[in-house]
Amino acid sequence: MKKSLGAKTLLFPTPVLMVGTYDQNGKPNLMNAAWGGICCSQPPCVAVSLRKATYSYNCIVERKAFTVGIACERKMAEADYCGIYSGREGDKFAATRLTPVRSSLVDAPYAEEFPVVLECRLLHTLEIGLHTQFVGEILDVKGDESVIGEDGLLNILKIQPLIFDTSRKGYHSVGPCVGQAFSIGKELK
Amino acid sequence: MKKSLGAKTLLFPTPVLMVGTYDQNGKPNLMNAAWGGICCSQPPCVAVSLRKATYSYNCIVERKAFTVGIACERKMAEADYCGIYSGREGDKFAATRLTPVRSSLVDAPYAEEFPVVLECRLLHTLEIGLHTQFVGEILDVKGDESVIGEDGLLNILKIQPLIFDTSRKGYHSVGPCVGQAFSIGKELK
Repeated sequence: MKKSLGAKTLLFPTPVLMVGTYDQNGKPNLMNAAWGGICCSQPPCVAVSLRKATYSYNCIVERKAFTVGIACERKMAEADYCGIYSGREGDKFAATRLTPVRSSLVDAPYAEEFPVVLECRLLHTLEIGLHTQFVGEILDVKGDESVIGEDGLLNILKIQPLIFDTSRKGYHSVGPCVGQAFSIGKELK
Repeated sequence: MKKSLGAKTLLFPTPVLMVGTYDQNGKPNLMNAAWGGICCSQPPCVAVSLRKATYSYNCIVERKAFTVGIACERKMAEADYCGIYSGREGDKFAATRLTPVRSSLVDAPYAEEFPVVLECRLLHTLEIGLHTQFVGEILDVKGDESVIGEDGLLNILKIQPLIFDTSRKGYHSVGPCVGQAFSIGKELK
């Protein structure tokens, strides 16, 4: 028997996405967004939802591009900073001492210190309510050599991505692999 | 210096969402979707992306409703089963011995055994490419008493939600809390 908790944005897990943009003056900005996820395999797309009030909102509308960095445990304070303060108040890259890198593919920057980044061009804009959803086509994923395994694949345990707990507002680490997808379910057949 | 990995759907973490629907005959179905996430705070909304080829696709289009259960470690094989086999091949609730419960709020079922469920009415449909994104307004979140803490909040460590690794296709557990959001970033100010 389940207990009603109300109409709330509770989902487990949610990611900690570092959305990188340029403003109208070319100042790089970085925000922390937990409302997002992959939304299409072909073309590969990622969705992020932002409030119109955010500094990043107009940047995406104007430049039609953004990057999505994967926040990691090693840079947790920096990631959190980008979720507390607005780009209106100053240069978040300077404040956090993160290094802005201009994407060679889209008109947006990313922070070198986050181990994985998705470079996206704006494909769709969906007005939902308080949040506007931006769907970006992923033109490339770039990863640090240090988080790529011997198999040539990104290694989630090396990335150490942050998980946002929508209930208690904590950041969690990723635990060990507990099973292989598209495999363990066959036992029930 | 980052290495290019190509235009791929790599994001960390992604969730394991159990999408519950009724087909035209009222048969309950459950699929496993990693492409999704919260997409708006007000109204509270969750997005899930499905291929048109899935059995669940028409169910959502026709009933304009779905549920989103949070897959957990305890029911990992059952969750994986729902991602391997199609509802066309049979009754996945029967095969996995999961218990279908009719939502009292929307025209869709959920599995009692997953500890948290979001009951959603279809709000938007966005055609992206191979996947169609369904945005559902969350009318209620229900949780098992066993995963609600003494503070009355859902406890992520009791839920034990699965994390899907988009790179190596493994399921991972959630690790410990490593920091408090909207707090630790203030240290950098």
